[in-house]
Amino acid sequence: MKKNTDNNMAFPRGTTWTPVETALSDLKKSLTMNLKCQKIDVSNSLGFILSEDVFAKRSNPHMANTAVDGFGFAFKSLIGPKNFLNLIAEQITPGSDIICDVPKGSAVRILTGASLPSGVDTVVLQEEVTVLENKISFDCNIKRGENTRKAGEDVKAGEVILKKGLRIRPQDIGLLVAAGLKEIGVYLPLRVGILSTGNEIVEKFNDQDFNKTLDANRPMLMSIMKKWGYKPIDLGHVVDDKHRIRDKLNQASQVCDVIFTSGGASTGKEDHVSRLLKSDGHLYHWKVAMKPGRPLALASWKKTPVIGLPGNPVAAFVCTLVFGKPICGLLSGEGWVQLGSFNIPASFSKAKKTGRREYLRAKIKDGRAEIFHSEGSGRISGLSWAEGLIELPEDLEKVKVGDLVKYMPFSGLV
Amino acid sequence: MKKNTDNNMAFPRGTTWTPVETALSDLKKSLTMNLKCQKIDVSNSLGFILSEDVFAKRSNPHMANTAVDGFGFAFKSLIGPKNFLNLIAEQITPGSDIICDVPKGSAVRILTGASLPSGVDTVVLQEEVTVLENKISFDCNIKRGENTRKAGEDVKAGEVILKKGLRIRPQDIGLLVAAGLKEIGVYLPLRVGILSTGNEIVEKFNDQDFNKTLDANRPMLMSIMKKWGYKPIDLGHVVDDKHRIRDKLNQASQVCDVIFTSGGASTGKEDHVSRLLKSDGHLYHWKVAMKPGRPLALASWKKTPVIGLPGNPVAAFVCTLVFGKPICGLLSGEGWVQLGSFNIPASFSKAKKTGRREYLRAKIKDGRAEIFHSEGSGRISGLSWAEGLIELPEDLEKVKVGDLVKYMPFSGLV
Repeated sequence: MKKNTDNNMAFPRGTTWTPVETALSDLKKSLTMNLKCQKIDVSNSLGFILSEDVFAKRSNPHMANTAVDGFGFAFKSLIGPKNFLNLIAEQITPGSDIICDVPKGSAVRILTGASLPSGVDTVVLQEEVTVLENKISFDCNIKRGENTRKAGEDVKAGEVILKKGLRIRPQDIGLLVAAGLKEIGVYLPLRVGILSTGNEIVEKFNDQDFNKTLDANRPMLMSIMKKWGYKPIDLGHVVDDKHRIRDKLNQASQVCDVIFTSGGASTGKEDHVSRLLKSDGHLYHWKVAMKPGRPLALASWKKTPVIGLPGNPVAAFVCTLVFGKPICGLLSGEGWVQLGSFNIPASFSKAKKTGRREYLRAKIKDGRAEIFHSEGSGRISGLSWAEGLIELPEDLEKVKVGDLVKYMPFSGLV
Repeated sequence: MKKNTDNNMAFPRGTTWTPVETALSDLKKSLTMNLKCQKIDVSNSLGFILSEDVFAKRSNPHMANTAVDGFGFAFKSLIGPKNFLNLIAEQITPGSDIICDVPKGSAVRILTGASLPSGVDTVVLQEEVTVLENKISFDCNIKRGENTRKAGEDVKAGEVILKKGLRIRPQDIGLLVAAGLKEIGVYLPLRVGILSTGNEIVEKFNDQDFNKTLDANRPMLMSIMKKWGYKPIDLGHVVDDKHRIRDKLNQASQVCDVIFTSGGASTGKEDHVSRLLKSDGHLYHWKVAMKPGRPLALASWKKTPVIGLPGNPVAAFVCTLVFGKPICGLLSGEGWVQLGSFNIPASFSKAKKTGRREYLRAKIKDGRAEIFHSEGSGRISGLSWAEGLIELPEDLEKVKVGDLVKYMPFSGLV
């Protein structure tokens, strides 16, 4: 058990804060997807998003086959508790061209995956059979169709196997191939522009830059978009100059489907990005009641959505997951994605202010969720320490050890 | 609640089965990592694995700064419950080159992220301050250092920030940049050969191929390796011919760090892959007590590890996650990775044979884990339906509705 005490950041009073859910649901309503489609090879489709339902071209299995190595026969051949069947000399192997007919009272040796020959509807495991020259014997403890797979039991030709909007995973590629697909219709990948702003930002640190900040956000955000399967576009860095930011946004809106900026999203006099989005674009939300991530602009510029992230990398990262993931999902054709979560007992206690949603850097240890030793949003190292986020709801006042909290893991099996 | 009844596949009796954990721990001991290192740019390092510990070149923050927009002053200037401080005309913005000295009794306006000028150790939020021409007033409800971030509070120059073996995520790239790194040492990506075997396998389906199977495994396995950050190498398909398989393995072992084969891993007479691995290579394990995935060969060929997967795509997929993920982790330099899991109440009931571990295709609905309507390992569509796997331990006999089961999600936040 740990107690978190170094929360040195006060929450301003007397201003209007938009709840996270309100901001999200307004965004969901206001955004639309405008991507074109293309045809691509199934084998190169990992991470692309289906632009149409996919229909099976071939049943899977194409023919009935055996799930085991054994002996195939007609179930009606069985006559009592112990059975003797004539053994046909042939052996049916997967893919073999042998066409054989198995009459009632006979059996044929057949190997896993081989199509059932005419006359066979049931397979007995080889381990359960005694082979006696031209006969086999086994106890009749078997059901009709045992150890076999019916033609089309997995997929029937002509049926929808994958729906429009699916982001293709490795297992979906397996299914597409098995169902006879070679080419599929997908959306062009979402082009996500990443722009850093602020006089304090430098790409390279020189000795005289004692009060400058290295641009951690741009490469971090670029790689998030890459990992999500999008096409990140590096828009570089601009200083706090209204005209330069305007020019950059004008250019970017021509080549990007959505733009993420970081920095300049606070209420300070130098925050040209947010003021510009308000005066020249459309600003949907301004102060979202969440921590980290208080200064967050959600806007549009010449019809291109702009997400104005805080300059702080921790806040920028969390806001990108919470807002950017569903927004990019919607704009990419995948649809509004929900963040996957699990209820996990907390290994910590913590007091929380009501009225805002909080995200904590967390990991699981011995089945319990623990949190980073500091909630300070300047602590980038906490993002690397973490393996997921905990989301605490607006009305929550405290977390006690053992309370279930909502944990969202960063990574999964595949 | 659903009951699963269509388990038409019997488990052979009277043979020796290796428990999953035994196979895994033997493999862990027998495998070694042999990859070379390289230097790469931090911005291109997503998914690479650190070949050495990384030391911070710069502290983060480099200088003490303010976490909010407000007024900075020396804490010792505060004298009572209500305070009046002289307001300095300057404004300190992030990255500005203004060097100002703030004497005791004075305050300076300062914006989020700006370095604290000399004399300032505490910042009061602008919302809590009344500005009166050349003075500001506020109630003294503030701690020393409030709303500030100390130099190096996140990372100190010279300390280890990321450990050898880490697979680099977007947030790690953020940390590396913030800590002044431009280049890092990583391992060359693991080269993973993917080979399909079997006379029944075709890449393209013609009308006369009524009893052939389309090669779903190869593109599926290639894309798993791609998604895991490895370099998949397409070794194509070979028919069940001992000499051709031997030639292929000889070639492949020259250019791959590990080889995954699928098909030919059963006990049937046509299973050249497993017999060849036994006669010409080293076979570690043969019959692993798990479902799906009974025929699984774990071997080496001219010192290159070979994972002989079942031909069945469902079994091949599950075995790749359960065995392939930790094996590739170890061989890639990341180390033996544990599959992340969560305990989730079951929405199904199921009887289970003891003595083997079972993996079920699953997803979460309303906080409970549900399973695919069929456990048949021919059902590839179940892999696409699923969002994770449930692992049932060897000694378990049944699952009741509401029992906690071990759920392993396929995907995460980022």
